[in-house]
Amino acid sequence: MNLLLLEEADFIAADRVVLRDRRLVHMQDVHRATVGDNLRVGRIGGLMGNAQLLRLEAHEAELQVAFDLPPPAKLPLTLLLALPRPKMLRRVLQTVAAMGVPKVVLLNSYRVEKSFWQTPFLEPEAIREQLILGLEQARDTVLPEIIIEKRFKPFVEDRLPALTAGTLGLIGHPGDYPSCPRGLDEPVTLAIGPEGGWIPYEVDLLTKAGLQPVQLGARILRVETAVTALLARLF
Amino acid sequence: MNLLLLEEADFIAADRVVLRDRRLVHMQDVHRATVGDNLRVGRIGGLMGNAQLLRLEAHEAELQVAFDLPPPAKLPLTLLLALPRPKMLRRVLQTVAAMGVPKVVLLNSYRVEKSFWQTPFLEPEAIREQLILGLEQARDTVLPEIIIEKRFKPFVEDRLPALTAGTLGLIGHPGDYPSCPRGLDEPVTLAIGPEGGWIPYEVDLLTKAGLQPVQLGARILRVETAVTALLARLF
Repeated sequence: MNLLLLEEADFIAADRVVLRDRRLVHMQDVHRATVGDNLRVGRIGGLMGNAQLLRLEAHEAELQVAFDLPPPAKLPLTLLLALPRPKMLRRVLQTVAAMGVPKVVLLNSYRVEKSFWQTPFLEPEAIREQLILGLEQARDTVLPEIIIEKRFKPFVEDRLPALTAGTLGLIGHPGDYPSCPRGLDEPVTLAIGPEGGWIPYEVDLLTKAGLQPVQLGARILRVETAVTALLARLF
Repeated sequence: MNLLLLEEADFIAADRVVLRDRRLVHMQDVHRATVGDNLRVGRIGGLMGNAQLLRLEAHEAELQVAFDLPPPAKLPLTLLLALPRPKMLRRVLQTVAAMGVPKVVLLNSYRVEKSFWQTPFLEPEAIREQLILGLEQARDTVLPEIIIEKRFKPFVEDRLPALTAGTLGLIGHPGDYPSCPRGLDEPVTLAIGPEGGWIPYEVDLLTKAGLQPVQLGARILRVETAVTALLARLF
């Protein structure tokens, strides 16, 4: 946790917060904070700044806070991601939040196991929890938007063309395709497939919606590694 | 597992192997392989090729194998990595093997907790296990070399200059430094710090050994994410 993220409910005055949950435990056990210490804080969806620890007890902490710094810029990116297996989903959500992706569409694919859609990690509160961990890691305050699309065809045919309009549309896909471009400034829509990849029918439909396959080389990467590698290369 | 990696001890003839361990379980439970199926195989340290499943029983499988394909090229890189916490170490070892790093130096740093050096995950067999998982994921056969350096100063002063000679030496380090370069062809020596970063004294010593700080932006990434992002950007 490199940034202590504050929720509206934490505020007892414009410049005072009281913490009682895992953030308190983290201050006690990891930061080993003592009264008077300064900590970096951020207001979810708002500015970042500093806090001074005024009072630290076993069950709660009170901090004086001041905000002056905007959060870092997001990437100009919409990420379409075939729903990963539940354990990977949690890590990927942290990673996309940490890397500054503003919008993620979790999408069905032929090779996504049906059971993956049943995971409790897709509940809004569970998604938010992982995103917060990513923001705390990277020092950002703005939650990415996560959109869930359980049906591939209607999403790609009916809604994807509007999302990709005015962006460079790319499919991260192993094979005999052009190399993934580097160091772009323009907005991008990037689709990353499931383990085993998109099937040809899906690549066709994504292509018709304006996305072109690009590749990163012969090595097959785990979804989390592929997401990080593609984003680091594109921007 | 995208590649079934074979050890010398698996061979009962030049073109026959028998498997009894987790690879057998994987074939049964994940691949749901049946007799006659073809599988991609690789010989550790050698070529990749194909196998045909000749016999599948509860306790063992026999395959006929043929090798014809070289493994993918490694990156022209030596990676110096401050020893991560044990759980992260395992994931990072998988990641560096998957991404094609040929040589990794696990290095001490002021901000590496002393207890990290006690982990059983640093035993040679435990390291090899994680590397194999990474090679199986990415389809590679050649184990990276892992060097353990428990003392920062003698390594950086006495042995690092010879390692960096003829390479571009870089330190991935947040701060007011040049941006990490992109798409290099030349060999690189890259140092990545611990959580919390190298201390100024360490950056000084690394700089004297020929490495220059470069940064990836304001976001603070977990070690595994930083490794992937830096490699994807450099090569």
